This record gives sequence, structure tokens and C-alpha cells, in this order.
Amino acid sequence: MTKTSTGNFFEDFRLGQTIRHATPRTVTTGDVALYNGLFGARFAVQSSDVFASSVGYLRAPVDDLLVFHIVFGKTVPDISLNAVANLGYANCRFISPVYPGDTLTATSEVIGLKENSSRKTGIVFVRSAGFKQDGTLVLEYVRWVMVRKRDEAAPSPGDHVPRLPTVLEPNLLGDACPPINTGAYDDVLAGSRYRYADYTVGEKIDHSDGITVEEAEHQTATRLYQNNARIHFNQFMEGKGRFGRRLIYGGHVISLARSLSFNGLGNAFHIAGINGGRHVAPLFAGNTVFAWSEVLAKSDVPKREDVGAIRLRTVATKDQPCNDFPYKSGENDDPSVILDLDYWVLIPR
Amino acid sequence: MTKTSTGNFFEDFRLGQTIRHATPRTVTTGDVALYNGLFGARFAVQSSDVFASSVGYLRAPVDDLLVFHIVFGKTVPDISLNAVANLGYANCRFISPVYPGDTLTATSEVIGLKENSSRKTGIVFVRSAGFKQDGTLVLEYVRWVMVRKRDEAAPSPGDHVPRLPTVLEPNLLGDACPPINTGAYDDVLAGSRYRYADYTVGEKIDHSDGITVEEAEHQTATRLYQNNARIHFNQFMEGKGRFGRRLIYGGHVISLARSLSFNGLGNAFHIAGINGGRHVAPLFAGNTVFAWSEVLAKSDVPKREDVGAIRLRTVATKDQPCNDFPYKSGENDDPSVILDLDYWVLIPR
Amino acid sequence: MTKTSTGNFFEDFRLGQTIRHATPRTVTTGDVALYNGLFGARFAVQSSDVFASSVGYLRAPVDDLLVFHIVFGKTVPDISLNAVANLGYANCRFISPVYPGDTLTATSEVIGLKENSSRKTGIVFVRSAGFKQDGTLVLEYVRWVMVRKRDEAAPSPGDHVPRLPTVLEPNLLGDACPPINTGAYDDVLAGSRYRYADYTVGEKIDHSDGITVEEAEHQTATRLYQNNARIHFNQFMEGKGRFGRRLIYGGHVISLARSLSFNGLGNAFHIAGINGGRHVAPLFAGNTVFAWSEVLAKSDVPKREDVGAIRLRTVATKDQPCNDFPYKSGENDDPSVILDLDYWVLIPR
Repeated sequence: MTKTSTGNFFEDFRLGQTIRHATPRTVTTGDVALYNGLFGARFAVQSSDVFASSVGYLRAPVDDLLVFHIVFGKTVPDISLNAVANLGYANCRFISPVYPGDTLTATSEVIGLKENSSRKTGIVFVRSAGFKQDGTLVLEYVRWVMVRKRDEAAPSPGDHVPRLPTVLEPNLLGDACPPINTGAYDDVLAGSRYRYADYTVGEKIDHSDGITVEEAEHQTATRLYQNNARIHFNQFMEGKGRFGRRLIYGGHVISLARSLSFNGLGNAFHIAGINGGRHVAPLFAGNTVFAWSEVLAKSDVPKREDVGAIRLRTVATKDQPCNDFPYKSGENDDPSVILDLDYWVLIPR
Repeated sequence: MTKTSTGNFFEDFRLGQTIRHATPRTVTTGDVALYNGLFGARFAVQSSDVFASSVGYLRAPVDDLLVFHIVFGKTVPDISLNAVANLGYANCRFISPVYPGDTLTATSEVIGLKENSSRKTGIVFVRSAGFKQDGTLVLEYVRWVMVRKRDEAAPSPGDHVPRLPTVLEPNLLGDACPPINTGAYDDVLAGSRYRYADYTVGEKIDHSDGITVEEAEHQTATRLYQNNARIHFNQFMEGKGRFGRRLIYGGHVISLARSLSFNGLGNAFHIAGINGGRHVAPLFAGNTVFAWSEVLAKSDVPKREDVGAIRLRTVATKDQPCNDFPYKSGENDDPSVILDLDYWVLIPR
Repeated sequence: MTKTSTGNFFEDFRLGQTIRHATPRTVTTGDVALYNGLFGARFAVQSSDVFASSVGYLRAPVDDLLVFHIVFGKTVPDISLNAVANLGYANCRFISPVYPGDTLTATSEVIGLKENSSRKTGIVFVRSAGFKQDGTLVLEYVRWVMVRKRDEAAPSPGDHVPRLPTVLEPNLLGDACPPINTGAYDDVLAGSRYRYADYTVGEKIDHSDGITVEEAEHQTATRLYQNNARIHFNQFMEGKGRFGRRLIYGGHVISLARSLSFNGLGNAFHIAGINGGRHVAPLFAGNTVFAWSEVLAKSDVPKREDVGAIRLRTVATKDQPCNDFPYKSGENDDPSVILDLDYWVLIPR
């Protein structure tokens, strides 16, 4: 019998099953540096130990999305090696800050299963969680993927579709953010004079800049997360496939959009949670990514006077500047749109 | 009103104005590793904690040019986002060693303004400085850039062109270099048997090797410095522009030339100052960079018997080996030349 | 006289000569992160300080091959700058674990010399060794390279071909591996349920995945090791040469194959020694690398009950999946094969 893992197929999953994932990973300042080189993040809290500790962190925390990608990467060999499509994520909460030196592990619980009518594939819903070495929960999120069946004749598990909130309630936000000393928070060093009160619901912000993506960049990032999904790395196979190209990891787009969003959202130093996200079109090397954001809502965070929560919709496009705020939804069907992300950020008051 | 920053235009600058720049940055061994991967530096002092501490440093200092690029990167959003051309730099001094763990910030003072006769652009002269967390000055330099006006009708600020020295006096060199124990300095480990006395004014050195530059490399380096100048990253826009290509950050060429210069200058472990530099032609991905150096002068460093200062002119070319020492100056107008850099290095006696 | 080093030619080597190499290098978590980004290694021992210390290491050790490449890189300027071909290596032993913070240096002893009948080149055999700051030997290996003569008329040194073992005896294995607490070794976190007893001599494992290599990736890796062999970096020259392309460092293929081998060999956490290796065809950017392994032998490690040694032959190909186990040897002459590596790994019992 072969020792080569071919990953799990749809009929291998059981409702309620909990999967502990390989490979534990100690996050270092080396990971942070490479992430910075690949995305060019400029948020002061994550960039400077001095700034971070002056406002209330122990030192510069690891970028929220780097934590997300590392946890996500661990789930790939067990959850999505045979995925046809990554359909979406929801209910993602950042729960504890991660610092260089922390070691991350991940688990997933199967919370939904639904076979497709073709009987060739099914949808698997998992709640994945990332933990530190001491057991502290740092992150959790739900995602659902369409996974191939090994055997079309395998029996259906029945329809189990979990009910998921479309938006995180504000009282669930902020656990990963220590109390912020807003007086010590230096707007000039942070690069933005706009705080919580300056943003208005309905406001749209063009992040203006564009970044062209190279094969070496997305491959290096995705390997850094130990995400081994084949579609990102194997031109020999993908060259014969649907796109004729390696497909870029969807999380790469999220990180690019987050980095671009600094221009206009420079004080939105922390992603507190992701309500939902859709990759509405694929991204390939050579494309240039642009992004814009809309303020969907604003909210107090219960029991906190230091920060407020802003709900953003950030849309990323390829080869299309965002000065006229393109999106893909209903009758507006701009083919340049690749990402539609709905999330909460914290901003100092 | 939009929150998107479009940077400063010529008429936004005021003589004597001081600008504090975002984003503070803690430099780590991760940054050093990525810099090494991108440039392949081989100077022993910056490569080995053991070597560095044996000759007099606390540990391996951060490469001088990595410090320069990080400080420079901070100035870009405020000074040169609307630059038409980066005209030159001068009077650059390295004043204190930087070690991993130090946090860098930057400021710039406007020391000159001169509108161009077209009234569409003007030249801005700034003295920029980098500081550590404790306020220690680590680096200062002057640069001048041609910046667009927002409004051609805006009044001229008058002509204010600062007088700049063409060369740093030797008594201004060496503050970033601790006393070097030249007896402990191991020439074999350092990779060169040539010390101060072995170099002759007028001597020319072909650094011999060539390095081809890839888009992913210069983009990763420039993002590592948090330099967000658009021209380096956005193929969608630059593809429609003057060159049809992304333009590589000029500092990338300086770092490549410095790395190549190890072959022939292996003991020139520290750049003490940069007298002046000109990017005489653009570099693009796919080009191969070569370099050669000429010894312009030698000097004692006042009150120091451990090291001497050598003034070098290093010329870099693209797609042209340097065995016949090409340059671009007066009647010698080799179109392969991309960089002409005049600087002081320290070498053990 | 020029100060530019042109490296040693065949007639510059003397039997018994010992060469101390430049440049000492402190290995950091930054180097580890970049290595991970370039190869995507997933072995738990090297990935997690917590996992590593739970089984018996001080913390996560530096990947064996990263140590090898750094030591190898130091030898290049002295041994192989004028090499026509890197003919092979043998008798490579990993002798002490290396941790971030350790500083590596290298030496080589000339143990064989043999002029070729053309009188234009000769073969140089060296035993190279890597050391830590305290003098601890961490690695040694033999390699032989065909090196150009500067002067065809230079006298022959006579024929001195060292006798080399074709395989390391098991009692020479394991010095770099502390006693492993096999009870604490968590197979789920490690990502494989197969331990020493589960492998059978003659068993073949297709590692299944493929990784396409980009120019920016192999250049960055090779520079990270401070390996300055020109053929890897200079498209201007190589474009006019035999292949018309930059040739990828052979060690890049070894690291890719090792990373791919995780799928099927997830508990083979340590390379104890390399019996021999041949690069049977060149690799270029754009190629996709695949790999498979055969279990050549199994052995107890004398005086150890924690781990067993498995002798593997790992074959890497370009643009050819390995499901039918292609190789190049005798009548089987698959042109897609690029690497044939014979080595010992340790696996927990």
C-alpha cells in the first residue's frame, strides 16, 4: 500500500469529526520579514516594537493575516487537497495576539456536509482553529469547500448545512487587541490622521496603488505558510488544466488588498474578524491588483473606549484601477473583480 | 473628502519645514536574511556575529545600505510620491551602527526649493535623517528630486539652492565604526588579503561578476524597505508609460554594485559616507548588472590608527562587462552605464 | 596587479593542502524563514521549537540541507569558481545539530588530484568540513569537481584518486541527532503515521507533487548561501553559453526533492548522511520538479533504540511525474531524470 497521501475525499469526512492538523510552526521575526517583503505592509503596530509597546502590546504582534495564512495552510493537507473550489469563509475571529516565538497548531471540526446533485462532489463545512503552545485559542473561522468524491457510488451523508451569521456581533470583537493607549498612539508615525470618528458609513475609499504579482512571489508566500495545495505550484500539471496557469492562493489577494488599504485606512491597525469573503475570479501572475473599500457600518466595542469597530467591504480587482469603485454583485458584474471581503477592523478613537 | 493620500506636490513644501515620516520599523535578523538572499553580500563583519564581535562591534551590524534603504523608504510617501525624477544625493553620513532589534524612524527637513522654468515642476532639496529608538542619529543624507506641481499657477517659492560639499571631509567619517582590533581581523575569513596600504589612488578594479535582476527580486527588496513608489510595482500603469516597464528602485542598483564590489574590495567592510550618486540610466528586470571601481583618494581618519578611508567611484552597467572600465561622463558616454557612485569606505590598516 | 579574484585553477591545488574559507556566517531564524519560503519544508522537528524540544532537541534545529548549502557555498570561491562540472559528492555526514545563532565556518582539504588526458582540466577531490563558533564539527563531505587549468603546459601533479566508501556504515550515523523521546513524538502533528518498522526494503514511494522553479527563487536561495558561482546568476554570459540559460545550483534540486519527500516520508526528520549524489541533467527555471524514493536498506543504529536508519535513493525529474518511478541508470535512460541521491535518514521506532 502506498504511503503517499492523496488527501481526504468527500466520503472520508464525518459530521462532528475533529481533525488535528500537522505541522506545528514556530513563527519568527524571519517569517515576519519575508511577509513584509512580499506584501509591503506599513501598519505601525506590526512594524515597530517601540510603537506597539507604547500603545499597549507586549511588542509588535504578528500580522493578523500571516497568522490566518499559517493556520489555514495547516488545514490544506487534510481538508482541501481534493477541493474543486474554495467556496467561502465566514465567522472568522482573531482572539489572541501572536508574537514572534509563539508556536501555532491547528484543528478543524466538520460542522456540515452536503453532497452535490451530480454525486461527484460534496460541500464540506469546517470550523478551523489555531492555538498557541500553551493552548490559547488565537483564531477561529469557518470555511466551506467543494471536495471530490473518491467513489461516486459512496452513500450520501445527508444534508447538513450549518447556520452561519452573516456578520460578527461587535461584542465578539477585540479579544486579540489589548487596551490601546490612544494618547500614546502617534498619528504621524502611524501615517494617518483619521481616527474612528472620521469615518462615515457609506464612505468609499480608493486605495489607489497597484501591485503586479510574480510567480516567485505567490509561490514563496504560499510555501511560507506550508500550504501545499498543488494548483499553486505545478505549472506542468496546471498548464494542461482549466486555466493553463498556476492559480494564485486566494489568501494572497487578501494580503495584497490589506496592504493596499493602508492608503486611506492607516490607523485600522487590527483585523478583529472576517464576516465573509468570496474569491469571485482567479488571479494569475502578471496581473496587477488594485483595491477599494466601503464603510459598511460602525460600532462601539462593548466595554471599550479606546477603539471603535468599522465594518469594511474591501473589493480587489485585477488590471483595473478602482477610482470608480467597481464591484460584482447583482447587476453590477465587473469581470475585473477578484475579491469581495467583508470584515471588521479596529481603529483608535 | 477623500482619505486617499496622493502625496505632496511642489507647492506643498516650505523652506525650513520639518517632516516626521511614518512608519517606524524594528529591524530584525529576518530583514537581514532577506537582504542577504536578494543581494548575496559576503562582507564578514555583517555576516558573522563572531567575526564582528572579535573586531570590536557588539555583534554583526545591519548592512549600511539596508539601513539607508529603510530610512529612504520612509521618506517616499511624503517627499517623492509625485517625483518625476530622483536627481541625486549627497553628503550622506553613517553615524551610528544599527543592530537587529533597533527601531528606526526618519525625518526630513526642506533645505532648498527651486521652481523649474516650465512652472510644471520644481526641485525639492531635503536633508533626511534616520534615528534609533533612543534618539541616536544613525544616518543623514541630502537628496533632491523633481516634483510635480498640483497647480501650475501656484506661486513660486523663489530660488533656494543649498550649497552642498562635493566630498565629505575625512574628519566626518567613521562615527558608525567602533575601534577595530586590526590584529584580530582575520583576512582569510574576511576573504581578502588587501588592506588600506595595498590600494593606490587611480587604481581600477573590475568586480567581474554579473547578476541578472528579476521582477520578483526588486519588488520584494523595495517592499522590504516599505518604499511605496508606484513606478516599481504597477505594471498595469507602467506598461502604458514612458518605458513600458516597471522601473527598478535606484537603491537596488547600489546594493547590487556593493555586493559585486566584494570581489576586489573584500575588506572594505563599512561605507562611512556617500559623497554623491547619480542614476544615469534606468534598470529593468532581465538586465544583468556589472560593476567596477576606481580609487579616487585615500585618507587617514583623524585620531584613528585602526582604519583608513578610501574614496571610491563605483560604476555599474547593464548588459556590459566592466573589464574596460566603461563610464559616462563628458566625452565618454557609454549607454550601458546606470550608476555612478562616489563614496568613502573604511578598510583596516 | 589586479585585486579581482579569479579563483583557483587546477595547478593551484596541492595534495594535502588545507584551505580555510571566507565568509563566516551566523545562521538566524531569518535564514530559516527564507529557506522555508523557498522550499516549503514541513518536517515538524525543524518547524516547531515546541515539537523539537519535546522529542529531545534544544529547540528546532536548522534544516540539514540549509547547513549543507551554507558550508558548500563557502567552498565555492576557492574550489569551484573555475569548475567545468561538479562531478559528485560522497561520504557526507551530519555530525552536530546547528541552531539559529550558531556561526558557521568551513575548511577544505585537497585529498585527490588527477589531470585529465586533454591536459586542459583536472579533477580536484576535497574533503570539506563545517564548524561552529566553538570549533564543533557539524558536517563533513567529499566532493570532486573538474577544474580548468590556467596553463595547459603546467606539470601534472600525478594521479591521486582517493578511495571513498560507496555507503556510510551505520555506526557513523546519528551524531547530529540527540536521543529522541519516541513516546513524546506525536505522529499526528508530524503528519505521518509511518515509523521505522513500516518501511520495507525495495519499497518505492511516489512523492506525487510537483514544484515549478522560478529564476528569482533559485537565485535568492543560492545567494542566501553566499554561493557566488557565476553560472547561476549571469544571464548576459550564460545566454551566450552552452545552455543559453542560467543553470540552477544542484543543491536547489536536492532541497526541492527533500521537501517533496515529506509526502510519504513525513517522519524521516533527519538526514544523517549522504552516501553519494549525481546531478545527471541540468535544471532550468520554468521546469517543474517531481521526485520519488526507493528504500535501499534499513539498519539499526548501533547503541540506539530510539531511531532506525533508512537508506534511500531519491530520484528527481523535470517535467515528468514519478508515478512509474523513472530513473537513469544502465539501460533505463530517462532523460527527465536530473538527480539521483543515495542517503540515510533517521526515523523514530
